[in-house]
Amino acid sequence: MDQRVSLITLGVGDVGAAKAFYEGPRGRPALEVEDTAFFQAGGSILGLWGRGKLERDSAVTDAGGWGGITLAHNVGSQEQVDRVIEEARAAGARIGREPATTAWVGYSGVFVDPDGHPWEVAHNPGFQLDNDGNVTIPPA
Amino acid sequence: MDQRVSLITLGVGDVGAAKAFYEGPRGRPALEVEDTAFFQAGGSILGLWGRGKLERDSAVTDAGGWGGITLAHNVGSQEQVDRVIEEARAAGARIGREPATTAWVGYSGVFVDPDGHPWEVAHNPGFQLDNDGNVTIPPA
Repeated sequence: MDQRVSLITLGVGDVGAAKAFYEGPRGRPALEVEDTAFFQAGGSILGLWGRGKLERDSAVTDAGGWGGITLAHNVGSQEQVDRVIEEARAAGARIGREPATTAWVGYSGVFVDPDGHPWEVAHNPGFQLDNDGNVTIPPA
Repeated sequence: MDQRVSLITLGVGDVGAAKAFYEGPRGRPALEVEDTAFFQAGGSILGLWGRGKLERDSAVTDAGGWGGITLAHNVGSQEQVDRVIEEARAAGARIGREPATTAWVGYSGVFVDPDGHPWEVAHNPGFQLDNDGNVTIPPA
């Protein structure tokens, strides 16, 4: 099957509160329909939906916490990592890991959104990052 | 903060087994380093990593099951939905929801990978899908 990830949907307790967190400086979602908010995220879409509805729609059983998926937002410099982490902190996120250099010769921090979804914010010189925000694994 | 999702990392029990599942017809990962496999996925990257390592790196506590994130892979037709679901079934996935028309005037099914991560495979005429696989929310 194709590895493309078209949508990433985060199950949340309160779509309005989650929307307020993710709007941050970006403004309104591109689409809101039936208690779902969709943000354009490059060539993918980030969705927010009630966690119970997402559980049923996904044909899984909710374990009630983190379930083995972590998202990352890559940026162009260490300073931008610091800035995004500070924005997340100001918006009410828990900072799971303060920004620091990493074993993989980069720099990153982790914030955990109010619904418990972790995001690594990273500057990774090993991945190419274009002006549109696309990340590319360089040829071996 | 920017809504871009640069990496989606799936925590798995056995990176080799998960890699075999996700390689499917796509061939080898673009990068393998320290028990992590990275697949290029459009302008994003899909990673596979040991779930315990990802848990610690993400500063969260593993609840042991699904944790409120579902991924979707959008395709261009109902027939392609059927084909991807059959490929996933043949590769050992549980089919959580057989392909069928949806309330949102589309067509989708759900497979759950061997580590419990659900993927909706969808044909959604409401989202624009270009030849490179990018999905775009049309203007309201």
